[in-house]
Amino acid sequence: MTVSIDIGNSDNPSVVLTAIQTVKFEDRPIPKISDPHDVKIEVKKTGCCHSDVLYYDEFQCGSFKVKDPMVLGHESSGVVVEVGSAVRNLKVGDEVAMEPGVPSRYSREYKFGYYNLCSDMKFAATPPIDGTLARYYILPEDFCYKLPQGVSLEEGAMVEPLSVGVHANRQVQTKFGDRVVIMGAGTIGLVCASVAKAFGATDILLVDLVQQKLDFAKDVLKVATHVYNGSGDRGLSPDEVTLKQLALFGGEFLTVGFDCTGFGPCITLAIKLVGPKGRYCQVGMGAEYTNNFPIFTLTEREIQLVGSSRYDAGCYEIAVKLIATKGVDVKPFITHRFKFEQVEELYELLKSGLAIKVMVDGPVDTRSDKKIN
Amino acid sequence: MTVSIDIGNSDNPSVVLTAIQTVKFEDRPIPKISDPHDVKIEVKKTGCCHSDVLYYDEFQCGSFKVKDPMVLGHESSGVVVEVGSAVRNLKVGDEVAMEPGVPSRYSREYKFGYYNLCSDMKFAATPPIDGTLARYYILPEDFCYKLPQGVSLEEGAMVEPLSVGVHANRQVQTKFGDRVVIMGAGTIGLVCASVAKAFGATDILLVDLVQQKLDFAKDVLKVATHVYNGSGDRGLSPDEVTLKQLALFGGEFLTVGFDCTGFGPCITLAIKLVGPKGRYCQVGMGAEYTNNFPIFTLTEREIQLVGSSRYDAGCYEIAVKLIATKGVDVKPFITHRFKFEQVEELYELLKSGLAIKVMVDGPVDTRSDKKIN
Amino acid sequence: MTVSIDIGNSDNPSVVLTAIQTVKFEDRPIPKISDPHDVKIEVKKTGCCHSDVLYYDEFQCGSFKVKDPMVLGHESSGVVVEVGSAVRNLKVGDEVAMEPGVPSRYSREYKFGYYNLCSDMKFAATPPIDGTLARYYILPEDFCYKLPQGVSLEEGAMVEPLSVGVHANRQVQTKFGDRVVIMGAGTIGLVCASVAKAFGATDILLVDLVQQKLDFAKDVLKVATHVYNGSGDRGLSPDEVTLKQLALFGGEFLTVGFDCTGFGPCITLAIKLVGPKGRYCQVGMGAEYTNNFPIFTLTEREIQLVGSSRYDAGCYEIAVKLIATKGVDVKPFITHRFKFEQVEELYELLKSGLAIKVMVDGPVDTRSDKKIN
Amino acid sequence: MTVSIDIGNSDNPSVVLTAIQTVKFEDRPIPKISDPHDVKIEVKKTGCCHSDVLYYDEFQCGSFKVKDPMVLGHESSGVVVEVGSAVRNLKVGDEVAMEPGVPSRYSREYKFGYYNLCSDMKFAATPPIDGTLARYYILPEDFCYKLPQGVSLEEGAMVEPLSVGVHANRQVQTKFGDRVVIMGAGTIGLVCASVAKAFGATDILLVDLVQQKLDFAKDVLKVATHVYNGSGDRGLSPDEVTLKQLALFGGEFLTVGFDCTGFGPCITLAIKLVGPKGRYCQVGMGAEYTNNFPIFTLTEREIQLVGSSRYDAGCYEIAVKLIATKGVDVKPFITHRFKFEQVEELYELLKSGLAIKVMVDGPVDTRSDKKIN
Repeated sequence: MTVSIDIGNSDNPSVVLTAIQTVKFEDRPIPKISDPHDVKIEVKKTGCCHSDVLYYDEFQCGSFKVKDPMVLGHESSGVVVEVGSAVRNLKVGDEVAMEPGVPSRYSREYKFGYYNLCSDMKFAATPPIDGTLARYYILPEDFCYKLPQGVSLEEGAMVEPLSVGVHANRQVQTKFGDRVVIMGAGTIGLVCASVAKAFGATDILLVDLVQQKLDFAKDVLKVATHVYNGSGDRGLSPDEVTLKQLALFGGEFLTVGFDCTGFGPCITLAIKLVGPKGRYCQVGMGAEYTNNFPIFTLTEREIQLVGSSRYDAGCYEIAVKLIATKGVDVKPFITHRFKFEQVEELYELLKSGLAIKVMVDGPVDTRSDKKIN
Repeated sequence: MTVSIDIGNSDNPSVVLTAIQTVKFEDRPIPKISDPHDVKIEVKKTGCCHSDVLYYDEFQCGSFKVKDPMVLGHESSGVVVEVGSAVRNLKVGDEVAMEPGVPSRYSREYKFGYYNLCSDMKFAATPPIDGTLARYYILPEDFCYKLPQGVSLEEGAMVEPLSVGVHANRQVQTKFGDRVVIMGAGTIGLVCASVAKAFGATDILLVDLVQQKLDFAKDVLKVATHVYNGSGDRGLSPDEVTLKQLALFGGEFLTVGFDCTGFGPCITLAIKLVGPKGRYCQVGMGAEYTNNFPIFTLTEREIQLVGSSRYDAGCYEIAVKLIATKGVDVKPFITHRFKFEQVEELYELLKSGLAIKVMVDGPVDTRSDKKIN
Repeated sequence: MTVSIDIGNSDNPSVVLTAIQTVKFEDRPIPKISDPHDVKIEVKKTGCCHSDVLYYDEFQCGSFKVKDPMVLGHESSGVVVEVGSAVRNLKVGDEVAMEPGVPSRYSREYKFGYYNLCSDMKFAATPPIDGTLARYYILPEDFCYKLPQGVSLEEGAMVEPLSVGVHANRQVQTKFGDRVVIMGAGTIGLVCASVAKAFGATDILLVDLVQQKLDFAKDVLKVATHVYNGSGDRGLSPDEVTLKQLALFGGEFLTVGFDCTGFGPCITLAIKLVGPKGRYCQVGMGAEYTNNFPIFTLTEREIQLVGSSRYDAGCYEIAVKLIATKGVDVKPFITHRFKFEQVEELYELLKSGLAIKVMVDGPVDTRSDKKIN
Repeated sequence: MTVSIDIGNSDNPSVVLTAIQTVKFEDRPIPKISDPHDVKIEVKKTGCCHSDVLYYDEFQCGSFKVKDPMVLGHESSGVVVEVGSAVRNLKVGDEVAMEPGVPSRYSREYKFGYYNLCSDMKFAATPPIDGTLARYYILPEDFCYKLPQGVSLEEGAMVEPLSVGVHANRQVQTKFGDRVVIMGAGTIGLVCASVAKAFGATDILLVDLVQQKLDFAKDVLKVATHVYNGSGDRGLSPDEVTLKQLALFGGEFLTVGFDCTGFGPCITLAIKLVGPKGRYCQVGMGAEYTNNFPIFTLTEREIQLVGSSRYDAGCYEIAVKLIATKGVDVKPFITHRFKFEQVEELYELLKSGLAIKVMVDGPVDTRSDKKIN
């Protein structure tokens, strides 16, 4: 790909997905504040994730399909460059983590305290809403979270995935002494583990098929107390695998399970590892239906199962606080860094599966006389 | 079957399952109070249920297998005929509902308030524990519930199945305004519906394949506001059936689902009928695994699923109170009555599926000089 | 008072409090829909309550002081006469209960699901917001609740006080089998009792000093199972009174207490009546501090105490459903009815303490050609 | 005091309170295991607390009065020297923390999961039950908690006070990000603060009148992020003090309050510091009634208040785990150590207020041929 515009001299350079596996740089109009509660942010850092790759590769993610060209990106941080007239808690120059999904203030879900399920959600880079891989982005004040002293913009961009882990752990009310299993050591599994640890879990078993990811979780992030590589288990029944995994804990059941894969056999195992009155959280989104779901085990043990979808009120705040208080260290997640211009290389890297989290700089503005209105 | 003993003149006539489809009357020794908190009860009424038939027909129920001859029966009421020295709240002559499962007082489950999951449970007519189809039965005082003025012994025997419905509804916290679907209109489905109504559910949809059961629920018990006969749905997808069922409510999702069948396709449907932040309770015990479990729906809507197993602390008390306050009318459940001597005819009836609840009288004592010690 | 304007021929006749004990009828401008989610309602019925009297008599209620002339009234129902462009669920002609307090959609409290505590609340007839005793009132669609078939406009106006009882009972999670004491048999005590009963409370003790109110609760509303007139208790210690009250229940503690008086000695008693692990809800607003608060009892019994302020998301819906399903009968609450023109007589009646709930008709429009825009 | 018996050569030397301010060493009979679930423990370490001083000084503590001579001590750890026939999880030689209060297995409170409120509780050194300041003590297996690798017997004796903090924090569900105020920096205030920190509280304000205690909390234990010495506040109103204390947090309310003093003015302040929807836990036991209780604040903010009494199922386990995982460091609490023979000096020290936690060794057995049966 050749970068077709002069990014440094553009008003609002944006990474636009125009066709399958095709991104283009465009100079989009600078967005304007329309609601007095809005702020305008100059985007500084954007993390890239699996859903970005799905859109890039397949033009869809879950039930969302791209129809018109769409700006990508939704895990961002930036600097406030303009505030609406009703803004009270932010000012120009504040560095903020940006919550990318804004629900309708008039929806039932918002009113009842679970806005993540709002059916009128406007979510960055979820069609047809443009994303944050641009110079400027508009958000309501209360969906921007001021980064405290000592929290960097890169860490600010990590608040988005971390919030997914916060929400999942709030859904199952992880607390001191919990003994946790997490299926999948990708970014979401890792943030779930990180938050579980910060919320007090004393044992954390991470299960994956890739030893490198497990080593990273155990030795670098230090969020797993135990890891299990399931790649040798083909042919074993769920009960046989369960016994092997429980053997790591002297046969004692765990108290909380998470599945971050959406993959049927993992769901089955994660439930079977949880003991009487245990809790289980489904985070991974996979196929519509799962088979071999251990309903008898769940009933007999009165396990509570709950789904977790993105994040709701309070999650971003908690995630920022987790970073600021060193409850979670997100820096080791960032394995690669790219310039704004290098977005296409980035997608190739993401597809390779070699990266954990790739961070993209916002476009540098080389003009002496910046325009932001 | 010929009744081989003189029941009226026996010390402790008992209905003993000796082989598959074979029950025998035996004069067992009168049980003795061994713990000062125990009471001795002369059993007066015993309801019979599906698990009794399974033991009768197959010598097993779930993972429990009959090895030695076992007295049947576990849904009973009776009259206190002797009290241990530490008994404080019951006296000879009190009529009581009998809770048939006594957990270990030293188990972790008992200590933490969920004794229904106690692995040392002694449950009447669950092998190897003898059941209540006998003249006398011993229970700790606090597993006997004095029947208040106006509650009959037959109603007392109905407290057992009703408690299953109480527990399930407590597990999902059914409350005023809930809109409920229940899969299965057998006894357990009906008690779940009855309790849901008493706890404030304003809409109750019962789903079954047998119209007669649905009519009974709607017209006789009056616990269903809506019924749905799924017998014509063969060939339809879960989503198609869901649409048909939701059409009964103008397309609006329900807030609570119960499955009382343990049957996979019912589980799938019951979850799909429940809306965002809804709750679901698995009551029915079927196969170990279920297929086509709608995990995506559950995750996306953040539905809470919980299992329900028998009943725990407080359920019997609430069930007695539900009957006493006319919150639930259990009398219409009792469709057939038998003498103690007629137990075998009873099993034939149960197997026919024509009865809802069959009530068996305790053995009449024809001796002028009764022995109870 | 002479009615100084021609109400029937006025655009928007309104009852304005202009000075202490002085109300004036004014023809205010017809309010306009400014937000596309708003609807315009022609007010049909307005209940009057104690806070209205406080404003009338003292120009203040709690910390709210009247500064400028203010239209009174906040317990209203009416008919939709105009809908904003974004309104989806209401249409002209719908009869609705009107929730009088509209929080800021941008407040933290609204976002987190407890908008009743929003500090930017705009509440009808709480200074400086004008109330509903007028021909027209504007509300967002979702603060209007369509009255179902069979629920009258008078019942619709009763939804406001009933919602106070709904919220209080949700705060303490009243459920089947609860045994409840309520201090104060005024409107709020009565709605708390009514909702407690509908939520499943099996014993309800109402305590007051006025026998007539207690008789009304027991014999007319039939919401109290027990009543206690405390007028003869002067000189007794809290423990002595508690013993007398518990004697009504064979000495057994209650499970839930409500204080609807705000009066110190009632608070003390209500807590002492509640047993170990009991719950207590403070509804009545009285002095800033209370003395002789039984902190030792509360600690030793691990009683949970919670405050209840107005109502939050869901309360109005539940209240409407309680009326529609006959869970609560609010009709007997309405002891007096007045025409719009008779507002001043109404305040005299309210001050006398003889009325429970007084209902005022909206102003009749006698013009052949009504203007509403 | 002269030690009147030869402790080293006694079977079961015990510290007996015989009269006000009078303790005597007696050689009591060695207690015998009577229940098969019991174990016999040789007591190794016993912490001493304020209630011991109350019994020593006043022969009573709260409503409990000493009538007959009573062995003192209830915060102990020791070594298992004999196990009953039903004991499954402990063996001779295991080091254990000893939970001193054993409820009735037949009580309603035990059955429902809150045994701390059991009215048949047998609590060490609460009249008429003898305490643990002796060579041997009998407890049921499940009230002994095996000390894991790396946890010393002194730390084991600290589990008792730490469990008080665990229970209080569980009662208010302290979680990550909570901002906490604790009134009183004595042992109970300090354990509440320690557990609050381990459960995730990010701000902890400790309030006391003694600067030395506050310095200890902040600089040695490092559990307080903020301290406030209220000794200069005489003459200020609660609102004035509240403003001064909130100023430490930029005026922002806290989310959780604890009172560990039982002292009225502290209760008032702790509630006023907590914001809307906050939680408050009463831990300190003081006078029966408190005055100037801010009921209006509590109601308006819908604060949830709950009492905390000792500890219930799970608290000891969590406390042991907190120590084992370094979530709480209890070693700095122990400021003084005494031999068994020095008990009287110890009470003098405790009365002086100079000690935080005083640890007493169990009696040394100098006999070559020990008797334990």
